[in-house]
Amino acid sequence: MASFSIAANRIYSRPFLKEEAKRSKLKPAPAAGLDRMYVAASVASTPPSLRLAGQSRVKPQKDVRIAVLGASGYTGSEIVRLLANHPNFGITVMTADRKAGQSIGTVFPHLSTQDLPNMVAIADADFSEVDAVFCCLPHGTTQDIIKGLPKSLKIVDLSADFRLRDISEYEEWYGQPHRAPELQEEAVYGLTEVLREDIRNARLVANPGCYPTSIQIPLVPLVKENIIKPLNIIIDAKSGVSGAGRGAKEANLYTEIAEGIHSYGITRHRHVPEIEQGLSDAAKSKITVSFTPHLMPMSRGMQSTIYVEMSPGVTIDDLYRQLKVSYEDEEFVKLLPAGVVPHTRHVRGSNYCLMNVFPDRIPGRAIIISVIDNLVKGASGQALQNLNLMMGFPEITGLHYLPLFP
Amino acid sequence: MASFSIAANRIYSRPFLKEEAKRSKLKPAPAAGLDRMYVAASVASTPPSLRLAGQSRVKPQKDVRIAVLGASGYTGSEIVRLLANHPNFGITVMTADRKAGQSIGTVFPHLSTQDLPNMVAIADADFSEVDAVFCCLPHGTTQDIIKGLPKSLKIVDLSADFRLRDISEYEEWYGQPHRAPELQEEAVYGLTEVLREDIRNARLVANPGCYPTSIQIPLVPLVKENIIKPLNIIIDAKSGVSGAGRGAKEANLYTEIAEGIHSYGITRHRHVPEIEQGLSDAAKSKITVSFTPHLMPMSRGMQSTIYVEMSPGVTIDDLYRQLKVSYEDEEFVKLLPAGVVPHTRHVRGSNYCLMNVFPDRIPGRAIIISVIDNLVKGASGQALQNLNLMMGFPEITGLHYLPLFP
Amino acid sequence: MASFSIAANRIYSRPFLKEEAKRSKLKPAPAAGLDRMYVAASVASTPPSLRLAGQSRVKPQKDVRIAVLGASGYTGSEIVRLLANHPNFGITVMTADRKAGQSIGTVFPHLSTQDLPNMVAIADADFSEVDAVFCCLPHGTTQDIIKGLPKSLKIVDLSADFRLRDISEYEEWYGQPHRAPELQEEAVYGLTEVLREDIRNARLVANPGCYPTSIQIPLVPLVKENIIKPLNIIIDAKSGVSGAGRGAKEANLYTEIAEGIHSYGITRHRHVPEIEQGLSDAAKSKITVSFTPHLMPMSRGMQSTIYVEMSPGVTIDDLYRQLKVSYEDEEFVKLLPAGVVPHTRHVRGSNYCLMNVFPDRIPGRAIIISVIDNLVKGASGQALQNLNLMMGFPEITGLHYLPLFP
Amino acid sequence: MASFSIAANRIYSRPFLKEEAKRSKLKPAPAAGLDRMYVAASVASTPPSLRLAGQSRVKPQKDVRIAVLGASGYTGSEIVRLLANHPNFGITVMTADRKAGQSIGTVFPHLSTQDLPNMVAIADADFSEVDAVFCCLPHGTTQDIIKGLPKSLKIVDLSADFRLRDISEYEEWYGQPHRAPELQEEAVYGLTEVLREDIRNARLVANPGCYPTSIQIPLVPLVKENIIKPLNIIIDAKSGVSGAGRGAKEANLYTEIAEGIHSYGITRHRHVPEIEQGLSDAAKSKITVSFTPHLMPMSRGMQSTIYVEMSPGVTIDDLYRQLKVSYEDEEFVKLLPAGVVPHTRHVRGSNYCLMNVFPDRIPGRAIIISVIDNLVKGASGQALQNLNLMMGFPEITGLHYLPLFP
Repeated sequence: MASFSIAANRIYSRPFLKEEAKRSKLKPAPAAGLDRMYVAASVASTPPSLRLAGQSRVKPQKDVRIAVLGASGYTGSEIVRLLANHPNFGITVMTADRKAGQSIGTVFPHLSTQDLPNMVAIADADFSEVDAVFCCLPHGTTQDIIKGLPKSLKIVDLSADFRLRDISEYEEWYGQPHRAPELQEEAVYGLTEVLREDIRNARLVANPGCYPTSIQIPLVPLVKENIIKPLNIIIDAKSGVSGAGRGAKEANLYTEIAEGIHSYGITRHRHVPEIEQGLSDAAKSKITVSFTPHLMPMSRGMQSTIYVEMSPGVTIDDLYRQLKVSYEDEEFVKLLPAGVVPHTRHVRGSNYCLMNVFPDRIPGRAIIISVIDNLVKGASGQALQNLNLMMGFPEITGLHYLPLFP
Repeated sequence: MASFSIAANRIYSRPFLKEEAKRSKLKPAPAAGLDRMYVAASVASTPPSLRLAGQSRVKPQKDVRIAVLGASGYTGSEIVRLLANHPNFGITVMTADRKAGQSIGTVFPHLSTQDLPNMVAIADADFSEVDAVFCCLPHGTTQDIIKGLPKSLKIVDLSADFRLRDISEYEEWYGQPHRAPELQEEAVYGLTEVLREDIRNARLVANPGCYPTSIQIPLVPLVKENIIKPLNIIIDAKSGVSGAGRGAKEANLYTEIAEGIHSYGITRHRHVPEIEQGLSDAAKSKITVSFTPHLMPMSRGMQSTIYVEMSPGVTIDDLYRQLKVSYEDEEFVKLLPAGVVPHTRHVRGSNYCLMNVFPDRIPGRAIIISVIDNLVKGASGQALQNLNLMMGFPEITGLHYLPLFP
Repeated sequence: MASFSIAANRIYSRPFLKEEAKRSKLKPAPAAGLDRMYVAASVASTPPSLRLAGQSRVKPQKDVRIAVLGASGYTGSEIVRLLANHPNFGITVMTADRKAGQSIGTVFPHLSTQDLPNMVAIADADFSEVDAVFCCLPHGTTQDIIKGLPKSLKIVDLSADFRLRDISEYEEWYGQPHRAPELQEEAVYGLTEVLREDIRNARLVANPGCYPTSIQIPLVPLVKENIIKPLNIIIDAKSGVSGAGRGAKEANLYTEIAEGIHSYGITRHRHVPEIEQGLSDAAKSKITVSFTPHLMPMSRGMQSTIYVEMSPGVTIDDLYRQLKVSYEDEEFVKLLPAGVVPHTRHVRGSNYCLMNVFPDRIPGRAIIISVIDNLVKGASGQALQNLNLMMGFPEITGLHYLPLFP
Repeated sequence: MASFSIAANRIYSRPFLKEEAKRSKLKPAPAAGLDRMYVAASVASTPPSLRLAGQSRVKPQKDVRIAVLGASGYTGSEIVRLLANHPNFGITVMTADRKAGQSIGTVFPHLSTQDLPNMVAIADADFSEVDAVFCCLPHGTTQDIIKGLPKSLKIVDLSADFRLRDISEYEEWYGQPHRAPELQEEAVYGLTEVLREDIRNARLVANPGCYPTSIQIPLVPLVKENIIKPLNIIIDAKSGVSGAGRGAKEANLYTEIAEGIHSYGITRHRHVPEIEQGLSDAAKSKITVSFTPHLMPMSRGMQSTIYVEMSPGVTIDDLYRQLKVSYEDEEFVKLLPAGVVPHTRHVRGSNYCLMNVFPDRIPGRAIIISVIDNLVKGASGQALQNLNLMMGFPEITGLHYLPLFP
């Protein structure tokens, strides 16, 4: 029978030290099209299994050096979580002005096992060691920061600053002039499944908002193909609280959120012009939507329940077929079997978007439901999916997380 | 300074024994129109303050003797909670077939301080000591039970069995023939604020479902006055889990509900014909609605977000004014100040319905939001409101609970 | 069959207007010992049922005029909720410095149905119209405020400022000198069931903290009677988040609290000296406790799980019997039947303390469990219980709330 | 500017099909000590990066063929989630008697993207295609099932059936005779960090319970080194609800769990003998513990707050140092920096155990806190860690999940 022995622990765990563990996750870089990367040759040419048995303790350099700007918020920490399993991207710079000098483990204890550089003020960041940037800063300040970055960097911006092509619309909804209109012209809207080729060639990607992601993925193909009417699109959306960020606000206290639901930003939510821009592009005509978001007691998750009128002669089967065709080869967008209802909890922590269409009781109408994790496909996951494309990697790299349920 | 003394406790708490505490809650019976009640004369003629100082320990008889059928479910226990502060209604019979012989405190420990009769099987209940009945049984069995009750009893039925005037509609949606069509003809639909006078004279009231309550209260006046169109009424409703009852179902486990949301019963929820019946009555023409309920992680609470088209020439102000006029004298239905968003947590545990109307981005459309506690105004609270009316008491009697927040 | 009619609503609801509804809740004042009150004689001499039928719409004056200082926090709003059903106490002054000029409904929409004075800055409050005060201000500032109040007022202070008899202990734990030591000498500690007689005669009551309430209620009788050892008392306590107040703090965001638990303030929580003071008084010797609080995802509720060593020869039955005897006449403290485990959800929203004792596996040890609602018996409910005593009313007045479950 | 194009989607997503995505996750098998495995030679000899560029669509065979018995419960689905990223283990058999014939996606929609065999009744399972088994069946039936499996299979059993060396103790706590005592003798207790070497050589591992894991990890080294007393060890543990499984029980409904806490199984929880066995082994003398579990509103997570007496002359620093030394090389057990409090939410979804020690107010006492995810380190994660060892792989393989927060 087993004899309990702590000594065994100390002896036999040695071969599995942190550094080695990390190396075992490494995968060699793709062989082509990555001129911006420097690859540690000895790593790339040896299968991981052999390296695991080796004695060297040198921490291998990852191929792409990443800066995370605004690492002390939820989207920043989610970037860190996802990159932990990315074989090619390694974080070399993290900024957080109010937490400068602190480790990520101090600010986010769930990340304390990661061996990462301390956070610095953005003014003190050294971008000479950086190949690409995730910008997780608030809208408004983002423009100036990105304007000041070296032009050689690839950038995925998670703020709203470069999402609206029409500068005047930005100024109307955000109440301030846009201070980098030239960057706005360069920016590519990062709805991966819809604009993949543009993203692949972009230097600056404006990562979509969470609501617009959950809404455009099902609607763009339907609008584009004219199988739903471009009128009276009614979107009732429900979001988890993490979308509001980590800032201390009375309205987001546990006691103010638990065990209840409420609508907010009725007709005035800033994701409206982004949704309308995407749908109007697809329709090649101006679309105005009804959009009512709701805040509910869950940390992650977002459901959009969308009520539409089908075009004359169109049936639910047509809608289903169109979505099937549009997304059948996608890794992260899944049309469920007919009749199966998507649940937000079935995408939690993952980059998936699940969706389905249902007939309405009122003839000629349909109900479309899509769910995402607002912090993953709705923010940091899609950002990583985009940077993978921009850097020439398979877009699913580092995103192989199944949903966490229950 | 205070000297800590337990002895003091035992000596001085004696005057506030349970029996006396109960008597202090008693109020005398209304003076007229209650021929079915027997009133303990000595109680009725003495102001409570004097009685409190008295020495008698006899437990005073309440005026109206109540039976709660199906007391082991959430609507049954909610009736018990509400009646605890009712000055005139006293529970004399409680039934629960599978819990027969048990005390309410065994089944619902939060009610263990109540001095109530043990639960009996319904076949063993003695209705000779009963004046009125709350029937909290499942649909289907309810019909037979109520058919067998003495005709002298006032009954509020919380099941769906008598809500649909059209028997064939009942059979279609509930998949079984109706076995008490003659009672269906007698039954009055118990949406208090809309049908108050009919309820006052009813013997059998079909208490509305929770969704229909939250939806009809704001819509009935608007439909009736033709200020919204009777077409394309789209209802996106969100409910707490208690509406599903206390039965053990995998789908309602904590782990299956927490931190997520999902739609259910899309186009097939059994509250649909009830909603359409009420709105069609108000419109004097057949109305078909789009109704999509959602289940979310809260025990109590219900929000209906309703998307409507206004009639030509009608403005949001007209909608607001109509609701203001329709409900300005109501105790439990409150139109919030313009622009204020109703939250479910602000009605938790109370009989209130809060509501408001908002302009939509799409011209000519409006968004209507109403919130209730599904177990109170959506079930047991409205049931008590109705029985108060049926027995000649002010309808707010026993319902003075402010919402519990946070 | 019922014909749907909104008109009925407007006609028949008239007799049940708000003012009348309020009057119907009124009960006459007790006849003696209340020289500070003015009693509307016509009200006191008429049974409520008769007054209900009357035509007068004059809002009746309640007997005792109450000021709530710090009405914009959770304990303040809880006082308002409880007083809504109090027949004798009426709020005439509410203060909230940062919300001065606002209505309670603006700050707490769940209270918007109440007809209350707007909040004023404390410097602008008129105490000439006040008989008694609930002081819900933060510790530290409380001392100065209370020092400045007219000496004729009865005061229940919910802060920690007057709980510790030993001024030096206050200064040690709260890190500042005490600025009202003379008031400290006058203050009576408000653990109602233990110090009822002192409270009855007090002018200034220091309302206990939530943890100390849940811990002292079961332990004081056991320590006092020497049936548990005064050594190694280990308290593992779990609290809902509302105890942390409504201030915006990152640590109390929904996202930081949901779906997890953690200890906090280990060995340093400021309730420690209060607990030790109470137990030491009971033991007549210095007791040091081990106290570890935990924060968990619930808005209300508190459980203390207490691990004790029984005195030689003592059994679990002895503990049970002692608690039975100590509290058998109490309205709000309930020893459950042997073996039944108290749950926090079974006291939610109510002033009850439920408790029980269990044998431990280790011989000679026992486990004691008590649960309260931290905002009611742990704060505002006990405060009202105390003011009732101080003003000569039955202590349960206005506290007849059954727990809200589920 | 970007032109929105769905067509791009369909064209360019082709290279990233599911099969290829899966291959990109593959890592070659370790080179030695795996005689039971057959390795697809072409896979093992080619670096993944090259294979990714290849054209072959043949689904590569993983090295080790896994059966999951009882795949329809939470521990079963968690095995599936973890194995999705395991480079060497592939699931070939899944059983679930009551769900036989169904796909995993039907039972657990969050796993519907996985290409897995349908579930079969255990009697129909073909173990000729299996190398190793995770047994996620209820205690009692497990014994018979495992007795009937081919002796060539490696087995990790997640039930309680083989955890207790003393058969009579099993019979006492589980109320039935043990029907496979000979297997009990062979079984190795799977507390990885403590019994790593025994596990490496085991054929049948009894995977520890969640509570015993969270308690033994911090206590075994301290007891073994005699730096805490073997007396009066008091454990107050708090668990998420998923530990209760997916069976439909009234007690685990959302409405019965949300917003509250309660103790359960006081002195009678079946994890007690397992905890005492492990601690007694470490102490080389019989230890009896006080163990009180609590159920609280979270799906995953477990905290054990442990109150101990230090041995004479021992300080908190000694405890800290001992834990530091015992676990400094461990990947999954982390002693936090002095003073930092572990939170359950900081291990959610991961295989980590975080812990720390704190001085108590009572001299000579200490407080030890450990947190785990009950479904990962407390069940399926540790099971995978163990099977990795048993099959000769680095024990962290497939377990590189950072915690999911918020």
